[in-house]
Amino acid sequence: MKGLLAWWEGRCAASKALRFIDVNLRGIGQVMFQDNPLSGLLFFVAIGWGSYAAGVPEIAIGGLVAVVASTLTTYWLRVDETSLKAGLYGFNGYLVGLALATFMTPSTTMWVYVIFGSAVSVVAMLAIANVCKTWGVPALTAPFVLVTWLLLLATYAFSGLEGGALPPVGEIVPIDPAAADPLRFGDFVSGTFTSITQVFLKGHGPAAVLLLAGLAVSSVASAVFAVVGALVGVVVAHLLGAESELVTAGLLGFNPVLTAIALGAVFYRPGLRVVVYTLVATVLSVIVQGTMMTFLAPFGIPTLTGTFVLVTWLFLLPGLKFE
Amino acid sequence: MKGLLAWWEGRCAASKALRFIDVNLRGIGQVMFQDNPLSGLLFFVAIGWGSYAAGVPEIAIGGLVAVVASTLTTYWLRVDETSLKAGLYGFNGYLVGLALATFMTPSTTMWVYVIFGSAVSVVAMLAIANVCKTWGVPALTAPFVLVTWLLLLATYAFSGLEGGALPPVGEIVPIDPAAADPLRFGDFVSGTFTSITQVFLKGHGPAAVLLLAGLAVSSVASAVFAVVGALVGVVVAHLLGAESELVTAGLLGFNPVLTAIALGAVFYRPGLRVVVYTLVATVLSVIVQGTMMTFLAPFGIPTLTGTFVLVTWLFLLPGLKFE
Amino acid sequence: MKGLLAWWEGRCAASKALRFIDVNLRGIGQVMFQDNPLSGLLFFVAIGWGSYAAGVPEIAIGGLVAVVASTLTTYWLRVDETSLKAGLYGFNGYLVGLALATFMTPSTTMWVYVIFGSAVSVVAMLAIANVCKTWGVPALTAPFVLVTWLLLLATYAFSGLEGGALPPVGEIVPIDPAAADPLRFGDFVSGTFTSITQVFLKGHGPAAVLLLAGLAVSSVASAVFAVVGALVGVVVAHLLGAESELVTAGLLGFNPVLTAIALGAVFYRPGLRVVVYTLVATVLSVIVQGTMMTFLAPFGIPTLTGTFVLVTWLFLLPGLKFE
Repeated sequence: MKGLLAWWEGRCAASKALRFIDVNLRGIGQVMFQDNPLSGLLFFVAIGWGSYAAGVPEIAIGGLVAVVASTLTTYWLRVDETSLKAGLYGFNGYLVGLALATFMTPSTTMWVYVIFGSAVSVVAMLAIANVCKTWGVPALTAPFVLVTWLLLLATYAFSGLEGGALPPVGEIVPIDPAAADPLRFGDFVSGTFTSITQVFLKGHGPAAVLLLAGLAVSSVASAVFAVVGALVGVVVAHLLGAESELVTAGLLGFNPVLTAIALGAVFYRPGLRVVVYTLVATVLSVIVQGTMMTFLAPFGIPTLTGTFVLVTWLFLLPGLKFE
Repeated sequence: MKGLLAWWEGRCAASKALRFIDVNLRGIGQVMFQDNPLSGLLFFVAIGWGSYAAGVPEIAIGGLVAVVASTLTTYWLRVDETSLKAGLYGFNGYLVGLALATFMTPSTTMWVYVIFGSAVSVVAMLAIANVCKTWGVPALTAPFVLVTWLLLLATYAFSGLEGGALPPVGEIVPIDPAAADPLRFGDFVSGTFTSITQVFLKGHGPAAVLLLAGLAVSSVASAVFAVVGALVGVVVAHLLGAESELVTAGLLGFNPVLTAIALGAVFYRPGLRVVVYTLVATVLSVIVQGTMMTFLAPFGIPTLTGTFVLVTWLFLLPGLKFE
Repeated sequence: MKGLLAWWEGRCAASKALRFIDVNLRGIGQVMFQDNPLSGLLFFVAIGWGSYAAGVPEIAIGGLVAVVASTLTTYWLRVDETSLKAGLYGFNGYLVGLALATFMTPSTTMWVYVIFGSAVSVVAMLAIANVCKTWGVPALTAPFVLVTWLLLLATYAFSGLEGGALPPVGEIVPIDPAAADPLRFGDFVSGTFTSITQVFLKGHGPAAVLLLAGLAVSSVASAVFAVVGALVGVVVAHLLGAESELVTAGLLGFNPVLTAIALGAVFYRPGLRVVVYTLVATVLSVIVQGTMMTFLAPFGIPTLTGTFVLVTWLFLLPGLKFE
């Protein structure tokens, strides 16, 4: 694997076009924290598969258009080369593209909106990263969440922007206990896999295998914590009596997946105490995902990865040293 | 013009009373970033005119009382002299006064509220400016927005505080496409002008001429970008299918006006790339104004200049150097 | 008093068990800013009394379990010794415990939730204190407010978490003037006392005497400002026409009590100008408490001490020197 990547890096150093592709692939890889073009490629294929299988290829295309638009914006803004090459200005744009294409009705305006939103996500990344730097924490997917929330809420105010697939606006109502059915084994497996694919806004179980492969080629620990996060997500959500359909669709588990990878395998040095710390944060992510869904109910917009950002910041900001 | 200002500055240096007037006028000028007493005077006259023409002179008086209360508070708090003399502790108070007098039913309590609110706006300015200093960005009108939102939301909880002219509380509902009528030429012109006067919460087209004059005597670039912001506001809002009455009344354009002046003429050195960057931010301000109106619908309070603050911070925080 | 405390400190230095008790008592004392085990003991007894008198002993037990869980978490995280010994990692947990036991229906899940929430409150304290350090301001009870809001909002999404005593979810409606009855003398006295006990989420007037005693043994100024804050809370709320039942129950006064102690007796050096500054902030706390209740109405969660945190930060962030 290392040889392959070294060979590829050599080719990229010699060709601007390949470097451009490399930066975009790393941008997609960074959605799950992997500065690795092969991870990005596998993630891209996984999302394409899930998108095609669901009969909505425009979602995968939206992501592609968006990551390219982000990268071009980054070149135009002339930001620091190191972060650019690591794909750090691409992952938010990629997610903005997937999200807008997922929640809006396709139209010419939507495509302009995708390009505009992904360009703005680069500015938001620079802004939020600059603020976060003060305390030595990363921006995570906060730029994606902020920009997408702003753009999706606006669809309610402009008739040219149609949020066809947005969650309904509604008064907050306590969950009906009857909605929390017993979890059958098939649902349990399905929920675990879709929790991983929902990181990219897709509920397509089989594609999770490709995503895990994409993680493993770059970091086995990340793949392990992704599975742990998904299991915690499904089990805790079920134990607390969440709506079963949400559990099965992975909608309560994708934020825990990201929290688990970030704290368990990326930003802290692995170790027993870090594992405990990560598990607490992962459980909290399940609970806070319920909080976020409740909080956003009156506004009719999805949580995206807002839960992950909030909880992970909370557990990174103390700046603890686990030795 | 320079001779006139030098003569005035000489008089102010010799007289505490004139200095006090000067500080208040500059405070009004700073609503549109002008550290210039003549700008302040022209803005003040424009708002007085619009206020009188609409049969609500109490609004202009509210602004006057508030800016004086702010300045007195600033003296009492003994803050740094340089910012004080530049009017940086007056513009938020002035806007608080205009806003409370606009949205509340006049009463003795309201007048006490205006004085109290403008005094608190100085504390909020010191607090927010101190936080923003960490990243080298200005507080903008965030103190005004924060204090006014707090004071207006409170009217729902106290029967002695009447928010007679507040927007209605309501569930978020997607805009009816029929409300986005074709824009006639007269409406287009009217919307452009009122977009400028709505910076001071007034929808009085003719007064825009005085506001533009007030900008031009201090900074021609600011006047140009104000017009650009207004045009972008009206055109983009219309293209996206906003409610026509909001467009015509300037309610979707005043935040873009401020964003355009701030980024295009005040905080970045002018140049082609800055113009492009400013235009993107200005278009985003139109969209986010729709977002803000949607977001605040369940709370029954106006957006004020919250959109401008959010977008301008987002585009200043990256700390880009456009050379 | 000093001799007693010195004797106790000597015993604690010699015994890990006594030190553990000491840290927990100081944690309770820090709810009202007192780094004093005797204050903590008196507060603990007061809350036990109020809780027992109201037939809900589980609330006092919830607080006790939570403060111990917080302290154990703090030991496990190996944070800095000085802050730990001063009880700075205990007060948020204690309040989380009281709040969850107050607003949720007792069950096994609730007790697990109390322990989990108080452990998380320590992480939140470390995170928020780290952020606040940048501007030299304290975290106050922000960790308690954040964690409790997150945990209570989640009860709407999980059928295993029952928020039995949460405020109802509802559209914002302006207060009916008829609800603002004249304030009888008995109600006035009652409102003043319960404003003090509501700091600990209890509306039990007599216990206020113990709380004031707990303050006085450590800082007479704190006791005085607590009373001043309560009086301002009741009088201003009534003058502004608040709902009389809220005034009498102390629900508009407990945030002003905390603001008055914090600014008047703890974080600024006492003096005439500080008193004026504190009074303005205390009056603002009454108004903003109305704001918070309005803002949270659509979400069906209580304000807790969010008002105090917001206003006190606003008045500390300017970093003024009153000499």
